[in-house]
Amino acid sequence: MANSAKTQPSIRILFGAAVALGPGKVDLLESIAETGSISAAARTMKMSYRRAWTLVDSMNKCFCSDLVSTATGGQGGGGAAVTDLGLEVLARYRAIEAKAARSVEAEIADFADLLVEPPR
Amino acid sequence: MANSAKTQPSIRILFGAAVALGPGKVDLLESIAETGSISAAARTMKMSYRRAWTLVDSMNKCFCSDLVSTATGGQGGGGAAVTDLGLEVLARYRAIEAKAARSVEAEIADFADLLVEPPR
Repeated sequence: MANSAKTQPSIRILFGAAVALGPGKVDLLESIAETGSISAAARTMKMSYRRAWTLVDSMNKCFCSDLVSTATGGQGGGGAAVTDLGLEVLARYRAIEAKAARSVEAEIADFADLLVEPPR
Repeated sequence: MANSAKTQPSIRILFGAAVALGPGKVDLLESIAETGSISAAARTMKMSYRRAWTLVDSMNKCFCSDLVSTATGGQGGGGAAVTDLGLEVLARYRAIEAKAARSVEAEIADFADLLVEPPR
């Protein structure tokens, strides 16, 4: 019996030691794109502004140009925008996730049969 | 220019909210299989014995039968063995990871061209 309801796999792609880009950073990038603000994205993701800013700074430095641009106004001040490169990175990362997930859909459905829900 | 050296993607598969099985638990399971002991595996993974034991207990309860069996002797006492089901789960999880990774090998190699190393 397949158990599609109990198992919703998510495939996550890390680069190197997750330095350049991993699931947390990509989710943050997506949230900044949606909210137009690092602080609003940080709130959505329940992380400190400082932590979000550090992740953005680290992402920016790992790519050939910035993924997020911050308006003048200082930390917490001027809002933030995901650049064209940032949007491209986001779209490509999500596409890779989706393709990888599709490739193992059948295996994961079979695997789910080993699980019990609720736990014993 | 491809940058295969700078990007070594790892694909990780989470089930649901990573409750049943995720990368941390699978690595722990693998380490128990290698060391024959929860406490040795915990040391290898730089986590407390208590944390490792909790993860094992949670894994066991999420599957139709135990993935790790512990010998009598109490916590830290009698050693631990990965069961046949545990070995099957481990092998299938790694196979799924590998197949998913292969499916997006080309996309990830292209993606790597957007990265700079060392970071700017």
